[in-house]
Amino acid sequence: MSYVLLNNQITERKNVKIDIEDRGYNFGDGIYEVMPIYNKQVFTMEEHLQRFEECAAKLEIKMPFDKATIANLLNELKTKNEITEGIVYIQMTRGVSPRAHLYERNVEGLITAFSRQMVFPKEQQQKGIRVYVTEDIRWLRCDIKTINLLGNTMVKREATDNDCKEAVMHRNGTVTEGSSSNLFIVKNGTIHTHPATNLILNGITRQTVIKLAEQNGYNIVEEAFSLEQLKNADEAFITSTTQEITPIIQAIGEINGTYSIGKLTKMLQNEFTQYVKKCINNK
Amino acid sequence: MSYVLLNNQITERKNVKIDIEDRGYNFGDGIYEVMPIYNKQVFTMEEHLQRFEECAAKLEIKMPFDKATIANLLNELKTKNEITEGIVYIQMTRGVSPRAHLYERNVEGLITAFSRQMVFPKEQQQKGIRVYVTEDIRWLRCDIKTINLLGNTMVKREATDNDCKEAVMHRNGTVTEGSSSNLFIVKNGTIHTHPATNLILNGITRQTVIKLAEQNGYNIVEEAFSLEQLKNADEAFITSTTQEITPIIQAIGEINGTYSIGKLTKMLQNEFTQYVKKCINNK
Repeated sequence: MSYVLLNNQITERKNVKIDIEDRGYNFGDGIYEVMPIYNKQVFTMEEHLQRFEECAAKLEIKMPFDKATIANLLNELKTKNEITEGIVYIQMTRGVSPRAHLYERNVEGLITAFSRQMVFPKEQQQKGIRVYVTEDIRWLRCDIKTINLLGNTMVKREATDNDCKEAVMHRNGTVTEGSSSNLFIVKNGTIHTHPATNLILNGITRQTVIKLAEQNGYNIVEEAFSLEQLKNADEAFITSTTQEITPIIQAIGEINGTYSIGKLTKMLQNEFTQYVKKCINNK
Repeated sequence: MSYVLLNNQITERKNVKIDIEDRGYNFGDGIYEVMPIYNKQVFTMEEHLQRFEECAAKLEIKMPFDKATIANLLNELKTKNEITEGIVYIQMTRGVSPRAHLYERNVEGLITAFSRQMVFPKEQQQKGIRVYVTEDIRWLRCDIKTINLLGNTMVKREATDNDCKEAVMHRNGTVTEGSSSNLFIVKNGTIHTHPATNLILNGITRQTVIKLAEQNGYNIVEEAFSLEQLKNADEAFITSTTQEITPIIQAIGEINGTYSIGKLTKMLQNEFTQYVKKCINNK
């Protein structure tokens, strides 16, 4: 039996259905979060719900419950679904109204959530992945974690068609991020990543990695870098909730680059694993 | 009683619900069309369904039925709902699958459609509207009529907040289109509109207006024009299915412009009305 969340009710999956004039369905008018579950515990829930609330404010969707209530509901959901390792997914749309572009302010969002067992891709994290470098065709508010994700899905398809696990995007030669991940490069011992502007989604794993790097004496340069710099990097890796820290060994597409799974990538992977253990054990 | 279409079944609205893992709901992964109904007849159905098919192909979503079957279903739907004047809305998503960015090819789309009585805004068409000029923040595939519409809804909200009926967008000073309409300007007797590239949606009303202008001996210049040109235009108007041809009398926001409801705008409005009558009467 699979349970899902509908607003503040946990109920059987088969009972939950969406209206054809939900604004999420007609306009992609909504936001989402994906949180990791380790050892039956949701990791970085607070950070994810903080961003969720910020994104709701950016779209002027009213949260129907406070973050603590949502956290309790998501914890109950993953427990009821008996998830040991995996993810919990939550989305909130602007709810149901007769289809029209213009939205009303302060309408309470409609929340749905599900959880799913998943094995984190440890082999990819050891062996590295290939990425496909292509144009970033998305809109100019990538800082909002919305369900307007067509641009992301299209480059993911393109990457897969080229035997790559992820797409890495650029705007006019400036590298932004992956289709469902952030990107870091290492050159001469310095770590670089795109700053958290409107052109990228400021990932929770990204933020964790920056914190861990700093705690280990490395300053991460949050400045835009070029395709040429990506091509010539010593190390490169992506970060995301489901991919954690995954090294890149080859980039193809608009540039060709090869990378070692180097000292800094391995250090951060190790630090991340320790940090997860610490947070989970502390509960 | 309100009826809607679900794939090839016309059924009561209350029976039709969408799964929480419909890709339309998680990714905005789908397309749509809005067609006008005049005197109980759907106008330009063939043109709309032709574009629907083309957009499905661009997103690699398989049409579950051919255009003729869909046309019959939409006709049946508007008849059953007893619509005399208004619209029929159809959307097709990539259907239900466990949430993941990567999509499968050749999956049959899931179709929903509804129809609605509506009065066309004749007063606005006589008196003209104000528009709010703002940045175009949308993605780079505006040629696909997808349900990834957040950028459009946000500028519509911004326009309304500034007492304007429509937003007019520009990219780096180049005028593109309205949030739910195409834009035309007239200068010294010549009509200009943005070319049908990836930066605009090639509206059916836009195409009709171009055809009618040409039939009346006017060549429309389909070349990108600047904010400065918009500011200094003699006439300006928007076109769309629900707004038909609506004159702009004032532009505010990033530029300030005032426009007369001039000879060419009125001529095209008149030609459009005649064309609708001719097509509808011919049936």
